[in-house]
This record gives sequence, structure tokens and C-alpha cells, in this order.
Amino acid sequence: MSKYRFAERVRPITGSAIREIFNMLADPNIISFAGGNPSPASFPSAKIKQIVIELMELNGEKILQYGSTEGWGPLRETAMAINSKKGINSALSNIQILTGSSQGIELSAKLFLNEGDTLLLEDPTFLGATQTFRTYKAEPLGVDTDAEGMILSDLEEKIKIFDPKLIYTIPNFQNPSGNTTSLARRKGVFALADKYKVVIVEDDPYGELRYEGDDIPCIKTFDSNGERVILLNSFSKTISPGLRVGYATADPEIIRKMAVIKQGIDIHTTNLSQAIVDAFYRKGLYYPHVQRICEFYRVQRDAMLDAIAKYFPKNIKYTRPEGGLFIWIELSKNIQVLPIFKEAVARGVAFVPGEHFYADLSGKNTLRLNFSMPSVEQIDIGCKILGELLHETLADC
Amino acid sequence: MSKYRFAERVRPITGSAIREIFNMLADPNIISFAGGNPSPASFPSAKIKQIVIELMELNGEKILQYGSTEGWGPLRETAMAINSKKGINSALSNIQILTGSSQGIELSAKLFLNEGDTLLLEDPTFLGATQTFRTYKAEPLGVDTDAEGMILSDLEEKIKIFDPKLIYTIPNFQNPSGNTTSLARRKGVFALADKYKVVIVEDDPYGELRYEGDDIPCIKTFDSNGERVILLNSFSKTISPGLRVGYATADPEIIRKMAVIKQGIDIHTTNLSQAIVDAFYRKGLYYPHVQRICEFYRVQRDAMLDAIAKYFPKNIKYTRPEGGLFIWIELSKNIQVLPIFKEAVARGVAFVPGEHFYADLSGKNTLRLNFSMPSVEQIDIGCKILGELLHETLADC
Repeated sequence: MSKYRFAERVRPITGSAIREIFNMLADPNIISFAGGNPSPASFPSAKIKQIVIELMELNGEKILQYGSTEGWGPLRETAMAINSKKGINSALSNIQILTGSSQGIELSAKLFLNEGDTLLLEDPTFLGATQTFRTYKAEPLGVDTDAEGMILSDLEEKIKIFDPKLIYTIPNFQNPSGNTTSLARRKGVFALADKYKVVIVEDDPYGELRYEGDDIPCIKTFDSNGERVILLNSFSKTISPGLRVGYATADPEIIRKMAVIKQGIDIHTTNLSQAIVDAFYRKGLYYPHVQRICEFYRVQRDAMLDAIAKYFPKNIKYTRPEGGLFIWIELSKNIQVLPIFKEAVARGVAFVPGEHFYADLSGKNTLRLNFSMPSVEQIDIGCKILGELLHETLADC
Repeated sequence: MSKYRFAERVRPITGSAIREIFNMLADPNIISFAGGNPSPASFPSAKIKQIVIELMELNGEKILQYGSTEGWGPLRETAMAINSKKGINSALSNIQILTGSSQGIELSAKLFLNEGDTLLLEDPTFLGATQTFRTYKAEPLGVDTDAEGMILSDLEEKIKIFDPKLIYTIPNFQNPSGNTTSLARRKGVFALADKYKVVIVEDDPYGELRYEGDDIPCIKTFDSNGERVILLNSFSKTISPGLRVGYATADPEIIRKMAVIKQGIDIHTTNLSQAIVDAFYRKGLYYPHVQRICEFYRVQRDAMLDAIAKYFPKNIKYTRPEGGLFIWIELSKNIQVLPIFKEAVARGVAFVPGEHFYADLSGKNTLRLNFSMPSVEQIDIGCKILGELLHETLADC
């Protein structure tokens, strides 16, 4: 019983399950496949230092003063340029800079969701999104997925029954599954959203991190009048998460209201961070840097896929992501991952049990592995330990 | 009629009235007393540049990685040290770093306010706070004020009738009135909040900007068990608003839930901004810098008070703030400020009509003048123009 009369929306909040897991992992000797952080080796620290020196010399007063809620002007233009390369036409009135792209989830939730409203999302999906939607007392409902993304028949049925306000989707190298929504499914999701007038929140923090295969157009590219899709992009996985810079591309009516909500949330994103990201792009450093980190992460991913093939029981299902940060493991339905997790931590390896990524906490036979943070050596050792544990567990069943 | 099914909470949002006013003021030839920005002359640009170079060399990787939602560890300790100088004991578990102190209003609102809940605030008060509270469909209700702050009898009566969840107050150099809540009233507000178990949100962005008189203890200093007051502090007016750094001091139960809400809002405040503010303090630059900007603003304030005495009609009521950024003007009840505002802009001087600062949009005979942004020369010229206009208007009535 709390001594405070908190709002109903936050009473169930006890802290992210994943945060609790991270607290368990304070031991630096644990090999962690649990995180979702970019590798520090990918950070362009020296270049950013040089950029900051130049920015403060040229533009110090403007950077230190209040900025506009919509964002640092040059960065909004940079966002338009990046959109354009992806086949998305956008004007300044379509761009809202965000303090990290996940702020776009908060803004979309506050903008659209009344208490009791339903929204649809992939099952499994990014836990942070589900939690944010719940703080508006909305009902996140999972749509069945396979390796190609949301299953359209299930999506349409749930749209018809539940009249959702939003469809939240991560089409590229999804968190947690690592799956990429196929072109046909993207078109299908857009067509259904358009038919039933549902707004899509297309979250694309990992889109630039492709290690093989061809880029697939964003759902936003099908949104010819720009009204149906809010596209969220991030610089956290490509430049730095600590700077907290992302952006939303959406209809001007949505952007205007987002800006008013953002005024209350933080007035504007830190100017210095925005100016750093903008200068990094304008100096032509962005795409070469992304290419370098893709090469780096490809090695990490391959190391983990190799180690899984080598050490894990043969009948285990796992995804082979073409990009992003995660591999997803599905054990047989009768196997519970939570006891395996506890034993794995005891043996020095951590991951995230998958149930937290399901709106209804099903998926108790699943787990998420991250390959961006551990070293190639740690990946091999960790997967070996995990493989032995899985062999033992499966032998017991 | 919108093409979107927005949430009820944002349907009335059309953008801040003050933002609209600022849009009217794009003309750089206008002398603006409308803003609330610190003077760029007060920004320690060169020192911050030097700090960033050192930070990126020493700690680049940590700054560019994800940080903790609660805040940059050293800055949380610095916040504790600043609190300690004000007579406030706090532990790490009492401190949440904010992306600007106004984020603390958003977090407090989301944490405490159900639809229809009442909260009490000074009449007039900071428009941004009222707007944020309204996005949670709460009912902000003004408490009558005089030069010493909230009138305690009115506060108690409204607590008894409306059972508010929060009392929002700006005790130092209030925005917009410039008034400072007296020691007796601070004790009275705390005693009433404690008696009726209402949480106080004590917003103190201007507290360090005192140009004369002695500091008065924060309401938080009376909160011996730490449960009753959420204190919000900012570095926007003392170091730089563009960096977006502030902090909340509150009970650990409140801080824990704030952190979970903040995870959805921006995961964490930009590390670089936090590290800059922290280093600025640790290098011993903070208090000497605050002293310098106080000397600078004292001159500005005195220039405006002198100009008002010289040019304005003698029967006009205005505040003589001991600090902060604003002077508040009250005309006779029968005079409407809006036509005066339009004519003033036509003559090249802007201010903010006061009605926007009242929860019920009363106060149509009031206006706010800012003295931090204009030069001393502009203050004299602008007040002369405004004085002439007020003489004409009063002669017409």
C-alpha cells in the first residue's frame, strides 16, 4: 500500500522486467547476451569531439540558447535528405526531431490513445513500446507473426473486431525476433491500415544495420498522401544512443500536435546533440560510418550463428537475421525458459527470457540473444555454455 | 474536423498562445519584452567548449553509450551537493535528472493525475505547467495570490472543497508575477499540504537568480521526512537552456516511478549535456558564474524598473522582483490588454498579455514584461513607447 495517491495508470508499474534482469547482471564476469546496446567500438568518439569543437566555435550561443520544439533547423533538413534516399518525400512540416526515436512511441500514444483503446502490435515486440502504451491505459494486443512479419489474416481479423487506433510495427530486424517484414507483407499491412483507416507507427531504429540482402522499402513509401504512417527513425544505433536523437516523419497535422505535446515533455531535444548528428551527416561521415559498423556487426552476427549451429541442440528453432542486433530462439512449447535463464546466469551467461516481449506474457519457451555487445570470443564461450545447458535441459524433458 | 481520431486529451490543443505570439514577433526590429529566454550574453560558451574537449577525451565512450534513466551518476551527486547548500538533505535515491526541469511537471502529472483530478496552482502561473496538467485531463484551479504568494485561507478552502492531488507552486521570482513567496507563507503552504496530505510540486527554475535581499528557504527544507514535496531545479537559467538539464528531488518511491515513466519519454537525458553541467559545477565555475549573471540581470531589471517609473502612468501597479526574469503589470480592471498588445506590436514593442497565465483566462488587465533578453537601450526605448501607449489608453478610458 503506497503512501501516495498515484494515478491509476502508473499503479501497476513496478519497473521494466528487463531492467530487473540487468540489475541481476551487475557482475562484470557474466557474458551478457541480454543487452541491446550498440558496441562502444562503433562510436565515432574522435570525430564527434572534433565536431563539437567546431560547433561551439561557430555556433555556441545558438546551441546554448532555447531551441525550437520541432528541432534544430539543419537537422530537420538532414532528416528530409535521409528520407529522400529511402524514397520518402517529406517537407519540413513532416519532421519532428525526437529525444531518441522511442520518444515517438510516447508522443504517438499520448496523441491517439484514450483509456481502453486497442492498438495492435507484433507478437513478440519491443517491451518498451508495450509498456508505454499501457501507461495510457490502452490495450496492446499481439498479432501473430512468422518469419515474414505480421500474418495479414490475423491482422485484418483483429482490426475488424477491435477497431484499433494504431498498428505498431518494427519491419526491419525486429526487436526481439530479428525478423524482417517481407515486401508483400509491408504492402499488405499498409493496405489494411488504409482500408480501415488505422494509423501505423512504423518504428525503424535498426533499418540501416543490414548485413546482407537488399533493403526493403519502408511502409512509409507506400503512404503516398502521407496521412497513414508515422515513421520513427533513430541515430542511436548508427551514431550514438547517449546523444538521444531520432525523428518522426508524419502528416503535418500529427507533427503539429506532437510538437505541442513535446513542449511539455522536454521543450526541445538538446541542441548540441542535434547539431552533432547534423554535422556528422553533412560532413559525409554518416554512410561510411554505417558501412563500417555493419561490417563489424556482420562478424558478430556470424560468430553467434556459427556458435549456435555448433553448440546448440539441432532441433532448436532460431532466426537468421539479415541485420539488427538480435537472434531469437524458440524452444519446444513444453519447455520453460525462466529456469534455464537462472541456471545460465549461475553458469555465467545471460540473455532475456522471451515472455516479456509478448503482450500477454506467453512465449515462455522463447529467449532473445544480443550479438552486438559481447566480443567474438565471448560469443563462442557463452554459446558453448548455453548449448550445454540446453542439451541437458532437453535431455531431461 | 480532423481526419484523425486523436485522443480526447489533445483535441483542444491548438498550440501555446505564447507560441502564437512569438510567431507574430518574427520581425527582428521589434523590441521584445515577450520572451523568457536567458540572455545569450550569460552563456559560458568558451568554458563549455573546453569542458567538452576534456569530457570527450576522458570519457567519450561512456558519454556516447546509453546511460541510466535516473541520470549521470556524478551529476546526481552534484545535485545532492547543491541541495545540501540549500539545507536539503538528499540521497542518490532522491534524485532524478530531467531533460529540463519542466519535464518534472510532465512526470508529476503523469504520476499523479487521473482524468478529472483537481490540482491547485498560483493564479497567475506558468502557462506551460497549466497546459501540461490539462493534457492529463486534470482540472487546474487557481489559488488567489498577493505579493507574498498564495493566500493561505483561499488555499485551505480549495483544498477542503476540491481534494486536490497536487499543489504546484513557483516560490522564487514567480513566472509571470515576479513575486517571491514569503517565509511565513512557505511554512503555511507546507503545513496545509502536510495536514491534508497533498503533494507539493515546488518548481524553482529561477531560485539562483536573486539580485537583492536574502535567500528564503525552499518549501522542501520543511519536508523533514521528504515525503511531501517534489522539488524541481533547473540549469537552464544558470548555465544554458539548450543543454536541457534539470533535476527532481523527491521521495524514493516517487523517484522510482518517475524513472519508469521517463524511460518511455526519452530513456535518459543526453549524457553529454549532463556531463557538461556536472563538470561545470565540479570545476568550481558554477557559483562564480551565477554571481556574474546576477550582476548582469540586476542592471537589466533596474533599467526596466527605472523606465517604468519614468514613462508609465503613475497609477499603474507593477511588481518589483528581487530576482528572476519578469515584471508583472496590473492595469485597472476595466482595461483590456489585448488591444494594447496589438497596438504595441504595431509600434514595435511586444510583451505577453497576462490572461494566458490564469487558469480561467481572467486577468485580461495584466501583462508580463521580460527584462533578460532586451538590451538596456531597448528597455528604455520600449518602455517609453509602451508608456506613451498606456498614457493614451488610460486617457481614453
